[in-house]
Amino acid sequence: MTDPEESASAPTPLAPGEVGLVAPCDFVCAQSFTFRSGQTLPGFTLRYETYGELNATRDNAVLICHALSGDHHCAGVHSLQDRKPGWWNNLIGPGKAVDTTRFFVVCANVLGGCVGSSGPSSVDPATGEPYGIGFPFVTIPDMVRAQKLLLDHLGVTTLHAVIGGSMGGMQALQFAIEFPGFVRRVLAMATTARESAQAIAFNEVGRQAIMQDPDWNHGAYPKGGGPRVGLAIARMMAHITYLSDASMDRKFGRRKKNPGNGDVYNFDVQFEVESYLRHQGQSFINRFDANSYLYITRALDQFDLAAADGSLEAAFGPVQAETLVVGFTSDWLFPPEQNRAIAHALLRAGKRASYAELTTDLGHDSFLLESEELYTLVRSFLERSQAPVVDFSI
Amino acid sequence: MTDPEESASAPTPLAPGEVGLVAPCDFVCAQSFTFRSGQTLPGFTLRYETYGELNATRDNAVLICHALSGDHHCAGVHSLQDRKPGWWNNLIGPGKAVDTTRFFVVCANVLGGCVGSSGPSSVDPATGEPYGIGFPFVTIPDMVRAQKLLLDHLGVTTLHAVIGGSMGGMQALQFAIEFPGFVRRVLAMATTARESAQAIAFNEVGRQAIMQDPDWNHGAYPKGGGPRVGLAIARMMAHITYLSDASMDRKFGRRKKNPGNGDVYNFDVQFEVESYLRHQGQSFINRFDANSYLYITRALDQFDLAAADGSLEAAFGPVQAETLVVGFTSDWLFPPEQNRAIAHALLRAGKRASYAELTTDLGHDSFLLESEELYTLVRSFLERSQAPVVDFSI
Repeated sequence: MTDPEESASAPTPLAPGEVGLVAPCDFVCAQSFTFRSGQTLPGFTLRYETYGELNATRDNAVLICHALSGDHHCAGVHSLQDRKPGWWNNLIGPGKAVDTTRFFVVCANVLGGCVGSSGPSSVDPATGEPYGIGFPFVTIPDMVRAQKLLLDHLGVTTLHAVIGGSMGGMQALQFAIEFPGFVRRVLAMATTARESAQAIAFNEVGRQAIMQDPDWNHGAYPKGGGPRVGLAIARMMAHITYLSDASMDRKFGRRKKNPGNGDVYNFDVQFEVESYLRHQGQSFINRFDANSYLYITRALDQFDLAAADGSLEAAFGPVQAETLVVGFTSDWLFPPEQNRAIAHALLRAGKRASYAELTTDLGHDSFLLESEELYTLVRSFLERSQAPVVDFSI
Repeated sequence: MTDPEESASAPTPLAPGEVGLVAPCDFVCAQSFTFRSGQTLPGFTLRYETYGELNATRDNAVLICHALSGDHHCAGVHSLQDRKPGWWNNLIGPGKAVDTTRFFVVCANVLGGCVGSSGPSSVDPATGEPYGIGFPFVTIPDMVRAQKLLLDHLGVTTLHAVIGGSMGGMQALQFAIEFPGFVRRVLAMATTARESAQAIAFNEVGRQAIMQDPDWNHGAYPKGGGPRVGLAIARMMAHITYLSDASMDRKFGRRKKNPGNGDVYNFDVQFEVESYLRHQGQSFINRFDANSYLYITRALDQFDLAAADGSLEAAFGPVQAETLVVGFTSDWLFPPEQNRAIAHALLRAGKRASYAELTTDLGHDSFLLESEELYTLVRSFLERSQAPVVDFSI
């Protein structure tokens, strides 16, 4: 997904209606964790943030799940000097679509990530060095199970909702399958029930750019070092898939960086779109770990809800939550039909599900951008009354 | 474009209806050539092939223009052991849509290319080393003007048609603008009148992958050496843009390379689409020069027919040829609307032009693939009688 600075307009941090100052916390889980791969860790850390208060019945929590390059910091600012609020600040806050005066919002950096949670850049206590590719392989179910342990730790007894876009949407769906009695509402946007061949292909090119960079060194590199060139290439390419032809044409078109210079004949930046992409690549390498990029794209590739059960309907069998899936017309990474297919399979499985398609020309990242239509959908889905969970198996 | 082996079924080389054995020729032009950039070469070479015979009136020539990664070898085989025919062998041959019993077919490797024509991998006589990025910058108009000199040398007085897809379509359009009295018919497929921001963006990521590879060495590398990793990455990514989501899903889906192994947790090839892409990257580096890739993608980026004249209609002012533009519904690199826009601008400029849209799900490379519908369009466009050229300015 796009960097936060691209996707949210800067608020006045302490204005009414803003989450304001927030601080991350670390959940250190000391119990052994077994991954889908069969590999284990003696424990793990998830870095997370919360906004709002857990109510007395402990059932007003909303879990926010982030996308490939996101993190736990989805709303508010870390200091008054902070120029960028969290990546979904437009959606989350007092009186906003995800209303922090009503809901206890939780967001954690995923297992395998690189922004405080345990991942390949964490130090392996056995060696004193980063795990690198010695870290266990991570899947979407692993990410979800780690977050469930965090919610247990926080005393949450029922999730009012789990919300996410892109990889966040995958986690939201997986949560409802793994912990059916625990989840009341699922809101999955710009996502898919199975990574397509084209999406795997883009991920693979990104991984090859990283792994063929001599500085990758089979995943063994010092913190802050590593395959910066390969990671920037991977990010530049992936970034194109988050936008749309129309939005790029409107934002950049064929505008030149230095229009006064006439036709320029060299391989330096000539077009604004080139300059923008190079900036995206460079800013990403300062905030993201290349091995985490490998792990998380692999988790995306392996995501195929239907695979274990033979069909999506069968996979959705245990689900008790009510689900809203939102697709965006200009999203060509996880196009509308892939989102619609999720809702249809839930309906065929006898579940409460709806599908909404928003007309945008902003591509995959539409879920992150300002949209009153989206806010209204989210707000009404979260606030409408719901039949008791026990009724869902009827 | 896709490698020839992907796009054409192997014929029996000497069967009736096949071009059969062909051999490339070199046109060595000893006159000084001035590029759009103002740079000059004292002369240049174009490698080319011809099929069929030039008629007595010297007006039955059909020029075939190739795409980014194509070359002069568009039909027939170079030896009886040759496993792959030329890249457009399905379209060109005795009795085929481009009928070599009627037409004198000419195809040249573009200026700036790396398959025999002068380009950055050619040896600079002044230094005895490859030009590298000391080679003059090449534009689509430069490519076209060099091919015109070849056609003059071959004694062609009038082009019956100029045909090309993708970058070949750009050359076909440019030819009709640069040499209006010389060109009777233009057949441009899967192309655009201006490279879009998204297409520039993909080209830029490919160039960065090449130029950031330490083996690029500012373009100075020995023949057969150079930035093989970067070039393979560029090719893998570009290849995705030549296909479609639907065709990749049909061809590969989520099929595993070794399905018996169950879930595999590593970064080796797991999915068939990964294996396919790696193969595409590896085979490309054995046949293509990285500097040529930089030059030709830059020529694509700079292609904007309307830029000099303020509008596409104005740019098409001189055109006398009759034009058929063919778009393909699943082409998301140069989508149907960009093809349609060319025909509409020609019509607004008072020219004879039509647009045909073929429903395919094979993506940009649809123009290369077997299609009776396309063959019929091409055949009838080439064979129908035409009003004399002088009538076109009415």
